[in-house]
Amino acid sequence: MQVDLNADMGESFGPWTMGDDAALLHTVTSANIACGAHAGDPDVMAETMGIALERGVGIGAHPGFADIQGFGRRRIDIPLKSLQNSIRCQVGASLGMARALGAEVRHIKLHGALGNMTSENEEMARGCYEAALSAHPDAIIMVLAATAQERAARSLGARFACEIFADRAYNADATLVDRRKPGAVIHDANLAGNRMVEMVKAQAIITEDGTRIDTPIDSICCHGDTPEAVEIAASVRRTLEAEGISVKMFEGRTG
Amino acid sequence: MQVDLNADMGESFGPWTMGDDAALLHTVTSANIACGAHAGDPDVMAETMGIALERGVGIGAHPGFADIQGFGRRRIDIPLKSLQNSIRCQVGASLGMARALGAEVRHIKLHGALGNMTSENEEMARGCYEAALSAHPDAIIMVLAATAQERAARSLGARFACEIFADRAYNADATLVDRRKPGAVIHDANLAGNRMVEMVKAQAIITEDGTRIDTPIDSICCHGDTPEAVEIAASVRRTLEAEGISVKMFEGRTG
Amino acid sequence: MQVDLNADMGESFGPWTMGDDAALLHTVTSANIACGAHAGDPDVMAETMGIALERGVGIGAHPGFADIQGFGRRRIDIPLKSLQNSIRCQVGASLGMARALGAEVRHIKLHGALGNMTSENEEMARGCYEAALSAHPDAIIMVLAATAQERAARSLGARFACEIFADRAYNADATLVDRRKPGAVIHDANLAGNRMVEMVKAQAIITEDGTRIDTPIDSICCHGDTPEAVEIAASVRRTLEAEGISVKMFEGRTG
Amino acid sequence: MQVDLNADMGESFGPWTMGDDAALLHTVTSANIACGAHAGDPDVMAETMGIALERGVGIGAHPGFADIQGFGRRRIDIPLKSLQNSIRCQVGASLGMARALGAEVRHIKLHGALGNMTSENEEMARGCYEAALSAHPDAIIMVLAATAQERAARSLGARFACEIFADRAYNADATLVDRRKPGAVIHDANLAGNRMVEMVKAQAIITEDGTRIDTPIDSICCHGDTPEAVEIAASVRRTLEAEGISVKMFEGRTG
Repeated sequence: MQVDLNADMGESFGPWTMGDDAALLHTVTSANIACGAHAGDPDVMAETMGIALERGVGIGAHPGFADIQGFGRRRIDIPLKSLQNSIRCQVGASLGMARALGAEVRHIKLHGALGNMTSENEEMARGCYEAALSAHPDAIIMVLAATAQERAARSLGARFACEIFADRAYNADATLVDRRKPGAVIHDANLAGNRMVEMVKAQAIITEDGTRIDTPIDSICCHGDTPEAVEIAASVRRTLEAEGISVKMFEGRTG
Repeated sequence: MQVDLNADMGESFGPWTMGDDAALLHTVTSANIACGAHAGDPDVMAETMGIALERGVGIGAHPGFADIQGFGRRRIDIPLKSLQNSIRCQVGASLGMARALGAEVRHIKLHGALGNMTSENEEMARGCYEAALSAHPDAIIMVLAATAQERAARSLGARFACEIFADRAYNADATLVDRRKPGAVIHDANLAGNRMVEMVKAQAIITEDGTRIDTPIDSICCHGDTPEAVEIAASVRRTLEAEGISVKMFEGRTG
Repeated sequence: MQVDLNADMGESFGPWTMGDDAALLHTVTSANIACGAHAGDPDVMAETMGIALERGVGIGAHPGFADIQGFGRRRIDIPLKSLQNSIRCQVGASLGMARALGAEVRHIKLHGALGNMTSENEEMARGCYEAALSAHPDAIIMVLAATAQERAARSLGARFACEIFADRAYNADATLVDRRKPGAVIHDANLAGNRMVEMVKAQAIITEDGTRIDTPIDSICCHGDTPEAVEIAASVRRTLEAEGISVKMFEGRTG
Repeated sequence: MQVDLNADMGESFGPWTMGDDAALLHTVTSANIACGAHAGDPDVMAETMGIALERGVGIGAHPGFADIQGFGRRRIDIPLKSLQNSIRCQVGASLGMARALGAEVRHIKLHGALGNMTSENEEMARGCYEAALSAHPDAIIMVLAATAQERAARSLGARFACEIFADRAYNADATLVDRRKPGAVIHDANLAGNRMVEMVKAQAIITEDGTRIDTPIDSICCHGDTPEAVEIAASVRRTLEAEGISVKMFEGRTG
């Protein structure tokens, strides 16, 4: 039994630092690296990819809405065609940088509000994934397990990997519990690790009320932008390995 | 005898239009398409590349300083390493979009203040070209003939193409006469055409005072952002062809 | 009987021009000048305000979403508090520039998607107007007549002016007919002029099906960004004056 | 004997935090608050001004080059007229926000590369200060003591205040020792405090080689963006007060 650990990275910008990418890159096996639209200027992208390459961590492009101040977290009503062109450029920028470093872009994951909207809207998800694949046909699509994202990837016949969240509680329909509700975000590193072992073994999302939603689980997302991020990721990794689940880069699956 | 005609394009942005790319793409054989840093958002890039592909016009990436309001025309004191990372991302964005459209990026040309600075500074030129080639090793470098750009391309052993300007007078050292001086910019389409025939036949830049500066001439740059641009480009093409010089895409040369 | 003519202006940006502000400023009596967030850099703002001042045209601040590429036309889901802070800065920038030129900012009008959203949502409109007035307590609020904007201005006890559109057809509920429907946009300068005379005399919006929606009409908006804009504005002005309606700056009213 | 303590603030942006403004605002008596061009979005500006107002700290506008990614630290070759318009808008934005909060903008200080360039170029400094004062005639100009900035302020007959740096060594011509040289930046809080006492008492900058450059000293700049910033500022304040120098807001002087 095996699973991948991923985190969002390369989210510093100009003089501002976010998270401790260098530390997290000791723990995760895949890195979702911002493409400069919602965070991550070219210098940040180069540095983050460079460390990931050195550590053998899988590099992913992490496109988002072109909104630096809003960090890609604001929903923007933009025509799908424009969004597709934006994604092509963002994925292309990642490819250009990766090639310059002798690295490869293995996977693609959508960021922030773009991720949320596409987990609710299969057509939008399909449009975004088609755009990403048109710029990088070999990419593996990283999807939020059991959402419209997964359905979109399947309907395209794309290679994909299903992720769940280490530190978030789930509703009965596989969506995340609203961050503002008590218990929505798990801050206890031990609890997070134990939940992940349980879900990976079950190959199911287990919701707050105990419901099991069967789904392949290829990767676990550890957030990178909180103070406790590095500790939670390390704890999740230790717990998984102690239970005999090996932590390694996902291969991706098809339909 | 043959020569290429090129023009800067894809310089519209959001709601704002610049030039008449669709018309110019009937005349030129190579298009230098902005990469989104100084002009040209992803939608503009997609549309311009799409027309160029349809017309069989060679597509080039045209990176510049990341300065939309200044249109890449302001000199910015930025470390070479950061500039290189920016160029990698810009070239990558062009590659991503081109691949999505089934097109190829054939060449790379530096824009605006970045072009001016690198025509004066061989080390800076070499750094920019190395960065561009690291993201796109097959690219042909389009250089300002007989400047530090040409020397840089030669010193890298890169494939390159030398361009001269259809509508600008030259100083004795192959630099352009300052725009603010009388006669610096040629507005007469016939005159522009005749000068180009003379220079291409001579394979030399002919300056205001009649000096000849020997140089290969692979391409002629027709500006795209003036009202008379389309007419000047068409006139230059007609005059060249009437004199038996065929107008076709450059092949590139090595030093 | 009198009415004001207004147009959106100062929407050029960097090297890109939009509309013919200098020409329109011969015809209109109030100018809504972009504040740099959706269009209009500081140079454009200075130039446009300068001409308006010279011609005695009333200067207004025209804040919009901070989205240059989208020209403020994309709906963005942003917390009201952040929007208020953005409006304070935009109005402040206008005030700073106006004071530097010896001019005054008389009114405030919301742009694009921000205008549309606030014409549907009274609470949002009230929040935006409170923010604008907190930065500039003497401003007159220009509202879309008979919409949530008007209700918000009244509920604040603010001084306001009601505008209607010269070139747009109206639905029965005082909203604009969708641009994509036939007849939604009026391109015939004579027709536009005659409609305005009819509505101003009736002090009512007259919809496509002939319904009258009673409303004060203090100003008529002539679009500034279409090729025929200057001609339509001039025609509307001539027709109004020929019918004895004098065209002059609004005074504003309270509710 | 008295002196003001100032620090650059409001330099967070979107999701990214810089410095600990809330803590520093317990120690300093004047705050130079970014205006959104090089750092500091409208929310950051509102929050920082709000705390400064609450604590009775003097609020200053801190305009810089419009370059978020470069944090206003890159020299940009921009026409003085454009720079002036940018400064008018930035100062105006600060004024708009301050008025909304019931606060006042007392002073203006130039940021980063703009500060450096104007400390070397009196004409540029005068142009920037004229622009700032055109938007806010009551402002006190904060200048780098004994540089072209001070000469510019004097030549304008403006009200100004002279600042020196708590944590930087000086050359014999009153410029700062290059950051890359040993001893250029003072990290020892005690040393910084003692130097300041010595200079304030002498009303002179004391350079590395012991030269005294006589100058009024109205304010001491404590950097806000380093980890030790809060501690250095507090130490400088304690040392000054222990020596009987009271720490309070500057009044400004004329030349």
